Amino acid sequence: MVVKSQIKFIRSLQQKKYRNQHGMFVVEGVKVVKELLASQITVHIIYSSDVEFVAENKTSTTLVSETDLLKISSLRTPNKVVGVFQIPVPIKINPINWIVALDDVRDPGNLGTIIRLCDWFGISNLLCSPNTVDCYNPKVLQATMGSISRVNIVYADLQKYLNEAQVPVYGAFMDGEVAYKEGFPGAGILVMGNEANGISQEIEALVTKKICIPQFGAKTAESLNVSTATAILLNEIKRT
Amino acid sequence: MVVKSQIKFIRSLQQKKYRNQHGMFVVEGVKVVKELLASQITVHIIYSSDVEFVAENKTSTTLVSETDLLKISSLRTPNKVVGVFQIPVPIKINPINWIVALDDVRDPGNLGTIIRLCDWFGISNLLCSPNTVDCYNPKVLQATMGSISRVNIVYADLQKYLNEAQVPVYGAFMDGEVAYKEGFPGAGILVMGNEANGISQEIEALVTKKICIPQFGAKTAESLNVSTATAILLNEIKRT
Repeated sequence: MVVKSQIKFIRSLQQKKYRNQHGMFVVEGVKVVKELLASQITVHIIYSSDVEFVAENKTSTTLVSETDLLKISSLRTPNKVVGVFQIPVPIKINPINWIVALDDVRDPGNLGTIIRLCDWFGISNLLCSPNTVDCYNPKVLQATMGSISRVNIVYADLQKYLNEAQVPVYGAFMDGEVAYKEGFPGAGILVMGNEANGISQEIEALVTKKICIPQFGAKTAESLNVSTATAILLNEIKRT
Repeated sequence: MVVKSQIKFIRSLQQKKYRNQHGMFVVEGVKVVKELLASQITVHIIYSSDVEFVAENKTSTTLVSETDLLKISSLRTPNKVVGVFQIPVPIKINPINWIVALDDVRDPGNLGTIIRLCDWFGISNLLCSPNTVDCYNPKVLQATMGSISRVNIVYADLQKYLNEAQVPVYGAFMDGEVAYKEGFPGAGILVMGNEANGISQEIEALVTKKICIPQFGAKTAESLNVSTATAILLNEIKRT
């Protein structure tokens, strides 16, 4: 059984305010919980209605009824496993490789996809402006899957960080130079902007090289989504 | 005022069965409706609660109250404009350029993103297996924005089409050859598979060249999402 106070606590973790207050976040789903259990991230507690899962993960898991799981889940059809983990302390960024920096990316799905892309392309550090959506938002976690445990995500003042950067700063702009012509260095920073407004003026001033993905279709085509553009640009950086 | 039968009709278009029966689809939002009005797609009727929009698009638009709009909208917060358009008759594919072929892509967001990518990369033809999600599904339309009017989307038997193809057939596989090494020709077919199962065995047998996007991070990284992978591969094809 899950006591009332515990239900309230877990449900509160849907909100950033309470995640920060408790230093914890909640995830749902067998696969992602298993990946987090196998990672460096510290587990707080896991509830599961799946007898097999509980048997496999005895130390940290409590068996609960599906009714109880429904009470702590944020989903209409709960995922059999709900896990609460400690928010890891971000490590100081060591800029020996590429860093992705996000200037106010607001959509949870986009941030989730970008974290997954960092994981795929071996980008260990993701720098987010304070107004970027919280990476422990349940919708972000849904989109990242286990990648969240393999990417060091730091929320910091982008302007301050870029100002002190010792590596070239690339930014994605509609009117930048064609990315294909770039010989990308072994280390650098790739800045991606907000969904509606792109990179802000203050950050633009700190970009050393504006790049773009050329458009091959009708000039009326919708611009690429920020996560799609990040995929293409990370591929361009890594393929060189 | 919108009469009851009309409300029922428009709401029925949320379902594929009724879209096919009536040969019509419904979209919401000022931007996408404007783009469709400017396209070759034939408008059936538009309802709007926005006086300005109605003034600008007199011939096809009826002014309705917000209460009425709420009745025909599928959204909790309607978008001021709901438009009903005729499903265009797909044009026979002319394989002089690249074609993207989807083998059972099921997620509406993925299909929407892929349509938008085709538009960006100048791919005029998108071939979908019959089990691929319907491109006039409201969630697909939400993700494509106006791109739906600029890409010729054909649902057909992939196996039959690929069997008769006169151009090379590339398929995305985890164990394919690194896409960077390919000198892609001016015309070909890029096959992308289902979210969970990838490309089916029957279609795999018809692929002339298996390609992949190399992984640079931890070997445990989540595989790339199908729309993200399509973005990277279309960029690879077009950049050559």
